[in-house]
Amino acid sequence: MSTDKLPTQHDDFPAWYVEVVRRAEMAEHGPAKGSMIIKPHGYAIWEHTQRALDDRIKATGHENVYFPLLIPMSLLEREADHVEGFAPQVAVVTHGGGEKLEEPLAIRPTSEALVWHTYSRWVQSYRDLPLLYNQWNNVLRWEMRTRLFLRTSEFLWQEGHTAHATSAEAMEEARRMLEVYREVAEDVLAIPVFTGRKTAAERFPGADETLCIEGLMRDGKALQCGTSHFLGQNFGRAYDVKFLNASGEQEHAWGTSWGFTTRMVGATVMAHGDDAGLRLPPAVAPIQVVIVPIHRNDDERAAVTAVAEPLRARLAEAGIRVRLDDREQHRPGYKFAEWEVKGVPVRIELGPRDVASGKAVLVSRLDGAKEEVAIDDIATGMAERLASIQRDLFAEARAFREANTHQITSFDEFARGVDEVGGFWVGGWCGDAACEADVSAKTKASIRFLPFEPVDPGAPCIHCGKPGIDTATWARAY
Amino acid sequence: MSTDKLPTQHDDFPAWYVEVVRRAEMAEHGPAKGSMIIKPHGYAIWEHTQRALDDRIKATGHENVYFPLLIPMSLLEREADHVEGFAPQVAVVTHGGGEKLEEPLAIRPTSEALVWHTYSRWVQSYRDLPLLYNQWNNVLRWEMRTRLFLRTSEFLWQEGHTAHATSAEAMEEARRMLEVYREVAEDVLAIPVFTGRKTAAERFPGADETLCIEGLMRDGKALQCGTSHFLGQNFGRAYDVKFLNASGEQEHAWGTSWGFTTRMVGATVMAHGDDAGLRLPPAVAPIQVVIVPIHRNDDERAAVTAVAEPLRARLAEAGIRVRLDDREQHRPGYKFAEWEVKGVPVRIELGPRDVASGKAVLVSRLDGAKEEVAIDDIATGMAERLASIQRDLFAEARAFREANTHQITSFDEFARGVDEVGGFWVGGWCGDAACEADVSAKTKASIRFLPFEPVDPGAPCIHCGKPGIDTATWARAY
Repeated sequence: MSTDKLPTQHDDFPAWYVEVVRRAEMAEHGPAKGSMIIKPHGYAIWEHTQRALDDRIKATGHENVYFPLLIPMSLLEREADHVEGFAPQVAVVTHGGGEKLEEPLAIRPTSEALVWHTYSRWVQSYRDLPLLYNQWNNVLRWEMRTRLFLRTSEFLWQEGHTAHATSAEAMEEARRMLEVYREVAEDVLAIPVFTGRKTAAERFPGADETLCIEGLMRDGKALQCGTSHFLGQNFGRAYDVKFLNASGEQEHAWGTSWGFTTRMVGATVMAHGDDAGLRLPPAVAPIQVVIVPIHRNDDERAAVTAVAEPLRARLAEAGIRVRLDDREQHRPGYKFAEWEVKGVPVRIELGPRDVASGKAVLVSRLDGAKEEVAIDDIATGMAERLASIQRDLFAEARAFREANTHQITSFDEFARGVDEVGGFWVGGWCGDAACEADVSAKTKASIRFLPFEPVDPGAPCIHCGKPGIDTATWARAY
Repeated sequence: MSTDKLPTQHDDFPAWYVEVVRRAEMAEHGPAKGSMIIKPHGYAIWEHTQRALDDRIKATGHENVYFPLLIPMSLLEREADHVEGFAPQVAVVTHGGGEKLEEPLAIRPTSEALVWHTYSRWVQSYRDLPLLYNQWNNVLRWEMRTRLFLRTSEFLWQEGHTAHATSAEAMEEARRMLEVYREVAEDVLAIPVFTGRKTAAERFPGADETLCIEGLMRDGKALQCGTSHFLGQNFGRAYDVKFLNASGEQEHAWGTSWGFTTRMVGATVMAHGDDAGLRLPPAVAPIQVVIVPIHRNDDERAAVTAVAEPLRARLAEAGIRVRLDDREQHRPGYKFAEWEVKGVPVRIELGPRDVASGKAVLVSRLDGAKEEVAIDDIATGMAERLASIQRDLFAEARAFREANTHQITSFDEFARGVDEVGGFWVGGWCGDAACEADVSAKTKASIRFLPFEPVDPGAPCIHCGKPGIDTATWARAY
């Protein structure tokens, strides 16, 4: 590990991000343009996130399936908005098995086309509905400017695809899954998020509504953390998914889709990290507790190890992900810095004097606070200590968001504020897409979300001054 | 579900397989050639298998990572045997983001090229070794003749890739992971497997040794169930993965790779199924116990449901994957047949007379045996009942394999036997690849495996009669 100082968040947030991802050994670029190699410390965070989300997806009645990677181009092209949105980003397979293919195949940028083509065979009667399926896979959307985790050509995600007999049921599903995303973002990744709906300009290609969760990173920029789409009957019509309703009439099915990606690993870095590196929520930390033994000679090492190893075993038995760092080639100070960069929530320092006194020093990654704890009490108290760090991390991020969410009193104040300090800016909106585009051009901010139902702000549009018909929350975003 | 009779295994095993996979709703073909849509009942079997294997991969010290889908063609071409073996099967991306690419990209047929290219950056000193990494992903090998789960262009798998400082350590790793595969095949999927090494003709392109587990399907054909490769220094040299050893000298790293795929879902169908459909090992059955209520009127339905629902809840609490099939549009007989095709290990039939007597009929999918059990005792006894079915399924498959493993006494007997009844045929082999090819041409059988260390069979080659230098086990195979 490099021992140079990290760039600070304040001086150069993008450089800080790149260096933390590198030094924490989370990921690196692959040889093909826009590709990413996810290393163990990054992948394990994703695995813990996956498990938490998958449990909730199943608990809400969904089953996992797997649809293929390759989609015939002609299939992708059936839903007009959808193909218009995704065609420019598609990677195309033209040769297979040494021969040119009769029809080129797209690597899935998302799977609605293939899923709804298949649903047309699976759905005949209202009794076949709802279809509640999800898949974990990789997708590919060609990108020129990439950033590890946040924007890469290939990324990992889950994509849920459901079909319903009524509009109301589909909308309820889209809302239910957004709520699942909110739970995972807040309760697992400790990232507070706003929920709402996107404007037409920011909608998923082919959706009637896109719902979203939006988080705030420590540089004041917003990050879209997950989206849930109400597809109306658009895909039902385009792919001819019809069912006989209880009254014996043919109808097109109503749809939803929703996705949550590896970008959330990047969000976890940017929502919690500090100038010393990652600060990981215990719920997803690959290592929750690290024990660093301290000794200057063989006698001391023997004495410390005799206590450190049983302590490690007791913590592991208590269900804690613990590591005893007994590497001989590194000094304690080096190890402290390494586990700080890697965001391990609790460090236990254990030296000969600690062993003699039956106590050890526990250091919280949250704020560096040190506490002496009786060695015999460490294992029993650790689950609650970690839960408390999880809560505090969330509370700190929420306080940061509150301090950085502003009511817009004038357009100039908003334009200056969003440039100088970032954050969320809330105000009236006329509902006009041209006005929205104008504001974006002037401020580099976009409407991150509107409330689920239009809310009359009782205030004119922050830009054009016409009567506001909704409340918009603006920010610069990743 | 179709209510026509299934083809029998005896009359037409391939047709039986196709129909069982279809009626059990495990998978179907996708629109792109050779692609497969895995449906919930098939995918859940894979998920349970994955979890069992992933736990063991981690318990043996490996960490999960993710390498990209796309590999620059020039990278794939560095190891001569490797590219010769895989180039004909590669799907090639030539366009991305609306433009022709400067260099075509291969969809990974396997990831050695990308992994070892990356390892050259990760390895400098012997202290960096071993690298013990694994990934769960999709790979693509162009196939003309496909069969669901057994042979599809895209399939799901895990691929482990390790690098070591010595040949002995790498070989030990290859053996260790083969043993992990044996455990999962036998203890989880209840499929008895032989372990051994492949002949040079059957080796993985680029490996010095390929170790394998081989199972026997109920039609007498063998199926390769997993492979673990000792790569020697071939990839270390081709991708320049060098390390400074403890004596300060540069050496190339030694490698292994090992893979286990969704084909094992197909193996589970073919190793255990009978003329009524699937018989699933409880360890991977998506539903382990189904409760089918029986009633002829509303009063009876109320009485039965009042007992069935609490029974379901108690089974679920006991950690059993249970389903109460209270669908109103189907009769009990239809449900029995459906859950039989889907291979649910235990069916509970619950009618008004059962409720009155406090007993229910339990039917084992293993052999159709019925047993009356006090309703209050069902939940507490179920884990052991399922464990016993798991053991019996394995014992039955092992007895079948023993009955179908033959010592070769003459070439003619072997040639006739392998054609008429299939099975494994064991005899002396001269070690000559030309003789091996000759036998394959005459019998359509191949050498499935050799013992780990050459064993002098004390018998001449079964074909050419020259002195046997090893013992070969032959079979026709998928």
